[in-house]
Amino acid sequence: MGSLENQSFGNGFLHPTETNGKVITCKAAVAWGPGLPLVVEEICVEPPHEMEVRIKILFTSICHTDLSAWKGENEAQRVYPRILGHEASGVVESVGEGVEDLKEGDHVIPIFNGECKECIYCKSPKTNNMCDKYRVKPLKSVMENDGKTRFFSKKEGKPIYHFLNTSTFSEYTVVDSACVVKIDPQACLKSTTLLSCCLSTGLGAVWNTANVEAGSSIAVFGLGAVGLAVVEGARTRGVSKIIGVDINPEKFLKGKAMGMTDSIDPRTLKMPVHEKIREISGGGVDYSFECAGNLDVLREAFLSTHDGWGMTVVLGIHPTPKLLPLHPMELFDGRSITGSVFGGFKGKSQLPHIVQKIMSGGIKVDGFITHELPFSKINDAFQLLIDGKSLRCLLHL
Amino acid sequence: MGSLENQSFGNGFLHPTETNGKVITCKAAVAWGPGLPLVVEEICVEPPHEMEVRIKILFTSICHTDLSAWKGENEAQRVYPRILGHEASGVVESVGEGVEDLKEGDHVIPIFNGECKECIYCKSPKTNNMCDKYRVKPLKSVMENDGKTRFFSKKEGKPIYHFLNTSTFSEYTVVDSACVVKIDPQACLKSTTLLSCCLSTGLGAVWNTANVEAGSSIAVFGLGAVGLAVVEGARTRGVSKIIGVDINPEKFLKGKAMGMTDSIDPRTLKMPVHEKIREISGGGVDYSFECAGNLDVLREAFLSTHDGWGMTVVLGIHPTPKLLPLHPMELFDGRSITGSVFGGFKGKSQLPHIVQKIMSGGIKVDGFITHELPFSKINDAFQLLIDGKSLRCLLHL
Ligand SMILES: [Zn+2]
Ligand SMILES: [Zn+2]
Ligand SMILES: [Zn+2]
Ligand SMILES: [Zn+2]
Repeated sequence: MGSLENQSFGNGFLHPTETNGKVITCKAAVAWGPGLPLVVEEICVEPPHEMEVRIKILFTSICHTDLSAWKGENEAQRVYPRILGHEASGVVESVGEGVEDLKEGDHVIPIFNGECKECIYCKSPKTNNMCDKYRVKPLKSVMENDGKTRFFSKKEGKPIYHFLNTSTFSEYTVVDSACVVKIDPQACLKSTTLLSCCLSTGLGAVWNTANVEAGSSIAVFGLGAVGLAVVEGARTRGVSKIIGVDINPEKFLKGKAMGMTDSIDPRTLKMPVHEKIREISGGGVDYSFECAGNLDVLREAFLSTHDGWGMTVVLGIHPTPKLLPLHPMELFDGRSITGSVFGGFKGKSQLPHIVQKIMSGGIKVDGFITHELPFSKINDAFQLLIDGKSLRCLLHL
Repeated sequence: MGSLENQSFGNGFLHPTETNGKVITCKAAVAWGPGLPLVVEEICVEPPHEMEVRIKILFTSICHTDLSAWKGENEAQRVYPRILGHEASGVVESVGEGVEDLKEGDHVIPIFNGECKECIYCKSPKTNNMCDKYRVKPLKSVMENDGKTRFFSKKEGKPIYHFLNTSTFSEYTVVDSACVVKIDPQACLKSTTLLSCCLSTGLGAVWNTANVEAGSSIAVFGLGAVGLAVVEGARTRGVSKIIGVDINPEKFLKGKAMGMTDSIDPRTLKMPVHEKIREISGGGVDYSFECAGNLDVLREAFLSTHDGWGMTVVLGIHPTPKLLPLHPMELFDGRSITGSVFGGFKGKSQLPHIVQKIMSGGIKVDGFITHELPFSKINDAFQLLIDGKSLRCLLHL
């Protein structure tokens, strides 16, 4: 595991003094161009600068946002060579100057949507997602501190770029401490990997953004990992009707095991989805969740809610230049639409409590990890997600 | 005043037994076609049917929605001959079978957005605007009970159509009791006229829909009667920054007298309005209110709010077929947009309390009525509104 021969230190933890302050040479999966297979190769990882943390990644998984960046779907976001990945868990290897809430050996999850705790956004009770420095910035590919990278190719010494404040497809990564959540060392690091993105996004959309009530009804459009996290969030809130919509009926079995009460496959339906949903939910669901990233689906999700109070939460990424397919007067029917980023969580403050809920069994996460592979098989894991065969494939570093 | 020679009954109230159950012949301003001058002529008004109320209108005023219907801007809504008008106050002349909460002599205001108190919408704490039977239905032109009119031309006996559940440009009108609000008989019926539409719409958008906090900041786009009611609502909530935007700078004087702290005339500005607003409000206002019915203005209003928590409330009517000029990913910046109809008030239940606030001076309504004319001059009153010279011209019947 890397060139450090550190396997002798028990359960994979590094002895702090061994690498602290030094450049680490280790393996990372590097994206060299749009859609090109990732190359697992040796890279150099600098020590963390002020308020930064170097993390030894133990597990990472792949999300559609990684796929999109890998394919270079948005040209403005094409930066290579780059280390992708943003769902992971690991252990702090060392911390930079000024970091006081984290230390070597802490179990942590990196988050792409940081919390500095000092800016007007972090201090506002009205928002959880807009940290002035560490919010999601899709065009950012360097560290906040100095605009430089902490990764270099071993061969040529060229910089390798960062991704979404995290870059977890590497045995070691350097992350701003605002983007590192310290969690209970007793927690299963395999499950907590999911909190870096999909699980937080789905649970929080239900709990924070929509704040659904027990006994209410919801519809979920798109039953990937985020959509199923919405189902799990709804189950824990006592939602009485959970309608899942997907064009891949294989997803329904898992959804129903997790609490889905109804399923709709639009391809075998003889009417618009929103009509069917209104029919089986007494005029429309109280909340709908769009997890597909498709504008036609978004409109169906909007129309599926009950007039007067229905709320649609948009979680899907919409790379299209097209505008919202809604007429301004449709806002007068009492339906609202809102976006949700990272589930509206303040990551550093709130995710440790979610970890406790997972540990106590209050949140069930067993169904999400459908495959596990060694890190070297990362390209196979990409293919599993592309083919719709995996929800999450956990890579072991 | 009509053919009833009832002027002898003191302050204009009819003796109940005189007309109860009989057809009343009186004067109304009838719209005979798109944009044609209204004709003040004699019409016949049937007694109220079950759960209906016949009201003697004392004061009525004109709103842009009347203008739009008069011009026939929306072809699907063209129905003639028709009695327009929806802002008014008056006295109950008689009630139909089953009406228990209203009786002859009660001081009332008609509302276009009724409250039956029995449907799922009226019973839901989550909505105030979607009464199953008496919500705003722009295409409706007859009574709910039997699909017929209560107005007939005196000459030919032909039906004259209703408008927005109210039709107040008539000495007598018949309205469903769900659309009649009983108010304190001590209240000034001139001021309460405004509660039928513009005042409720503006105050409620601030109090109910946005629920703004003391010390927050707002921007109001369009300083007509609705926009100024937003200003008044904000003043009563202790909003510390109230920015008014209008292309008619004559409105600023009135706005500032009512509590506006800043004014912006987009025509003399060298930058986009939203940039100016962000500049003078520390990154954007907490709430913006679109009262102009223009999509470009709507987008400026949306961008004028602070990212992370800004809320835009749409009050303007948008007759354009164009869609919302917002990209789905813009919802991820933490800005939200929502519509507000009739200020989110449950009219029958809540407006009587607003009347009390007006009577106690807690809400100031002096600035809204800029002109007063006899009913016969209704076409002049239309012109004053078209020319932007009046906020509200009160017609005396
Ligand atoms: Zn993700
Ligand atoms: Zn912050
Ligand atoms: Zn009106
Ligand atoms: Zn109702």
